[in-house]
Amino acid sequence: MSPETQQLLSALGDRLGAGGVLAGSDVDQRYRDDPDGKLGALPEAVLRPRDTAGVAAALAACNRLGQPIVVQGGRTGLTGAARVQPGEVVLSLERMTGVDAPEAASIVAQAGATLQAVQEAADGAGLMFGVDIGARGSATVGGNVATNAGGIRVLRYGMYRAQVLGLEAVLADGSVLTSLKGLPKDNSGFDLSQLFIGSEGTLGVVTRAALRLHPKPASEVNAFCALPSLDAAITLLGLLRQKLGPLLSAYEVNFAPLYDAMVASMDMPAPLPAGSPVYVLAEIQGNEPERDGERFAEVLMQAVEDGVIEDVVVSQSPREVRALWAVREDANRVLFSIKGLIGVDISIPLARMGAFLQEADAAIHAMDAGADIYVFGHLGDGNLHYQVRTVDPAAAYDIIYRGVAAAGGGVSAEHGIGLDKKKWLHLVRSDAEIATMRRLKAALDPGNILNPGRVFDLGPPALAK
Amino acid sequence: MSPETQQLLSALGDRLGAGGVLAGSDVDQRYRDDPDGKLGALPEAVLRPRDTAGVAAALAACNRLGQPIVVQGGRTGLTGAARVQPGEVVLSLERMTGVDAPEAASIVAQAGATLQAVQEAADGAGLMFGVDIGARGSATVGGNVATNAGGIRVLRYGMYRAQVLGLEAVLADGSVLTSLKGLPKDNSGFDLSQLFIGSEGTLGVVTRAALRLHPKPASEVNAFCALPSLDAAITLLGLLRQKLGPLLSAYEVNFAPLYDAMVASMDMPAPLPAGSPVYVLAEIQGNEPERDGERFAEVLMQAVEDGVIEDVVVSQSPREVRALWAVREDANRVLFSIKGLIGVDISIPLARMGAFLQEADAAIHAMDAGADIYVFGHLGDGNLHYQVRTVDPAAAYDIIYRGVAAAGGGVSAEHGIGLDKKKWLHLVRSDAEIATMRRLKAALDPGNILNPGRVFDLGPPALAK
Repeated sequence: MSPETQQLLSALGDRLGAGGVLAGSDVDQRYRDDPDGKLGALPEAVLRPRDTAGVAAALAACNRLGQPIVVQGGRTGLTGAARVQPGEVVLSLERMTGVDAPEAASIVAQAGATLQAVQEAADGAGLMFGVDIGARGSATVGGNVATNAGGIRVLRYGMYRAQVLGLEAVLADGSVLTSLKGLPKDNSGFDLSQLFIGSEGTLGVVTRAALRLHPKPASEVNAFCALPSLDAAITLLGLLRQKLGPLLSAYEVNFAPLYDAMVASMDMPAPLPAGSPVYVLAEIQGNEPERDGERFAEVLMQAVEDGVIEDVVVSQSPREVRALWAVREDANRVLFSIKGLIGVDISIPLARMGAFLQEADAAIHAMDAGADIYVFGHLGDGNLHYQVRTVDPAAAYDIIYRGVAAAGGGVSAEHGIGLDKKKWLHLVRSDAEIATMRRLKAALDPGNILNPGRVFDLGPPALAK
Repeated sequence: MSPETQQLLSALGDRLGAGGVLAGSDVDQRYRDDPDGKLGALPEAVLRPRDTAGVAAALAACNRLGQPIVVQGGRTGLTGAARVQPGEVVLSLERMTGVDAPEAASIVAQAGATLQAVQEAADGAGLMFGVDIGARGSATVGGNVATNAGGIRVLRYGMYRAQVLGLEAVLADGSVLTSLKGLPKDNSGFDLSQLFIGSEGTLGVVTRAALRLHPKPASEVNAFCALPSLDAAITLLGLLRQKLGPLLSAYEVNFAPLYDAMVASMDMPAPLPAGSPVYVLAEIQGNEPERDGERFAEVLMQAVEDGVIEDVVVSQSPREVRALWAVREDANRVLFSIKGLIGVDISIPLARMGAFLQEADAAIHAMDAGADIYVFGHLGDGNLHYQVRTVDPAAAYDIIYRGVAAAGGGVSAEHGIGLDKKKWLHLVRSDAEIATMRRLKAALDPGNILNPGRVFDLGPPALAK
């Protein structure tokens, strides 16, 4: 064990209680886990506070010693922000999993609680939490805040930022900022909670969150549609928004040939035959169970008559709703089975999406005629998950990200930047913006101990113009 | 003219073009305007850039010279943030009023454009902007961003923050941060735009905003209800949310004796007789004109049968919708006519609102038996505008703000802190929070030239724990 780690462990002493510090052979391999399979280093120590005071003590000690920390929640992030780098100690929120009972339209949860625990607590009180993502069972509140998580219902409820009524966070020096009143409207000074949303653990460690809850919809109906083109899918999105307004809650897309590959090996009945260029899963959440499905079907049938939709199935029961969502999630089964696939999570203005897809396809196939491209995503938000199997992944990344930047898009729609996308950040953010991010980092974490090297590297200090 | 001002004018020279700098006798009295009637100082100079580059040049010059600036938009703010202090030069955005054509579901506007100009541009494109406030004709985009404006439809569309897809802002040193892609989902690095929302011009000057637009509702129906108590009004809110879900778009309250005073001198027919303890204006925005009003009326009639509502009128036409809103806005007529009234804009958790109102009423009347209290506001958001006519305003402020703090509320729900509420900020924000606000200020405006002394004073530098 390094002298630094020994100093830290002795500084924290009994402060974190039994099981609060793991070191040496007590450190489990799971702290190296990474969903992308890029194993992190085995940390020399893991700090596992039980409460906010413990987090504050851990950070204050690390800050005094200049000990870098990597913050871990559910380790489901897709850009390596929680991947242990050599010399880092892990600060894990895994023992802070408390979820309070919902009060009025809000709930307070500790950072280590899973998304699913929040969803279930809301549901138990007849309410609903607005964010849902595939990793719900392991992704945590803290990680969701730190990455400003997105998912399938951003269209209706907004990103994770829109769910946050307030946070408690600990700064690198151990200062605790508590803003958990849960007020929907409060302009009493700067809203400091905003700093910690989407900054990937680089500015402070979130310990608790006051989250907004919504009335539980009385009905949920979805539909799976085959469409002749992306343009048709964008037209249908506009139609559904116009006719159904705020009821529309999800609008997911799946392009050929991904759906074809899914159908070829699906272990459930395919809702529609393969062969169309574009498939969409649309969902509404309403308050009139006896009527919402019928209205939704009417709008869809009109779109069929107008040639916007080629074919459609509308769910007739909660079981069918789940079955259509299972088809959407089946994309991952196929994609995980393909060796050597690279994937990006990009944001493109809808008006430029068609041109971007055509140009990226042409450029990738010019570079590697045998490349396979699989695209799905959250079309309602302009967010695509774009996968390529190619002999030259580096060239493919370059083509895609430069195309995204040229189209006025973002190199990360919902996953964040972490370690793995840092080198592309400059394509979409100016020097002045990156210099300002560094200024904030220097102001709140002058010793650079919190998730160092995530999002950006500390360059030379930003110079005033 | 002071040597400092002369230096500034010569530094900016022709940079801001004809009419870009007003000095001495060219400075109009209107720059002293304040809606609360607390006239500001007459500034020695007014800088009126036409574009972002002009704002950057003005700030860089002021920063070099250590010249403090007060930023002005429509001068409709209610806490003195734009009120000129001695020695300050005005930076006015009044010549930056451009509004681009809406594109997809967003619009880009310059900071000096009025809220109404944004609303009208959205409307012209068949869309809707989600924020509305009484000062729409003069309040500007920049001021709305800087104060995170609220208003009557927060319940449905959120605060101004929820409308911001991205900003362009200039830092004190003249650096320009441009984030105007308008992407609904973008986690490519820190979301720097959040810094400028609600920080009242202390961290940077907003020059342009990319704002979210919504589909225009096909129907708008409102209702004016008399209720036996605040509890009944809270019950009705829950009922409407549960039955109508996202259709509910406003829920405004007016307590006795304010409505009685309004009716006594109203120059239009009162929708309901005076005499009830609580009145509510509820509104829905829907997508089925032929049906929404009927559904709304059904839910309201059931509430009458259940004794939740004493009496109700439901609008039957767009004209009647406007007439009921005019009643809501008529509160200001009565309040402005009362001499010596003090008013606060507070946020209180709904569960504690009844107790707060009772206790504040008792304490104020114990202090001044002849005091009059008038309360209205945005009940759906827990936001009350609370007015008192008393012989001892200072004591009344103290009673109200301490009561708000004890109830877990906020001393400013939507107006901000500015100069006028600074002394109460510590009641609701911790030393650690205020120290962090100062750290941000020092990081982004180290010379303290931007709206100095607004929100908080610079104390001794925050010390690490």
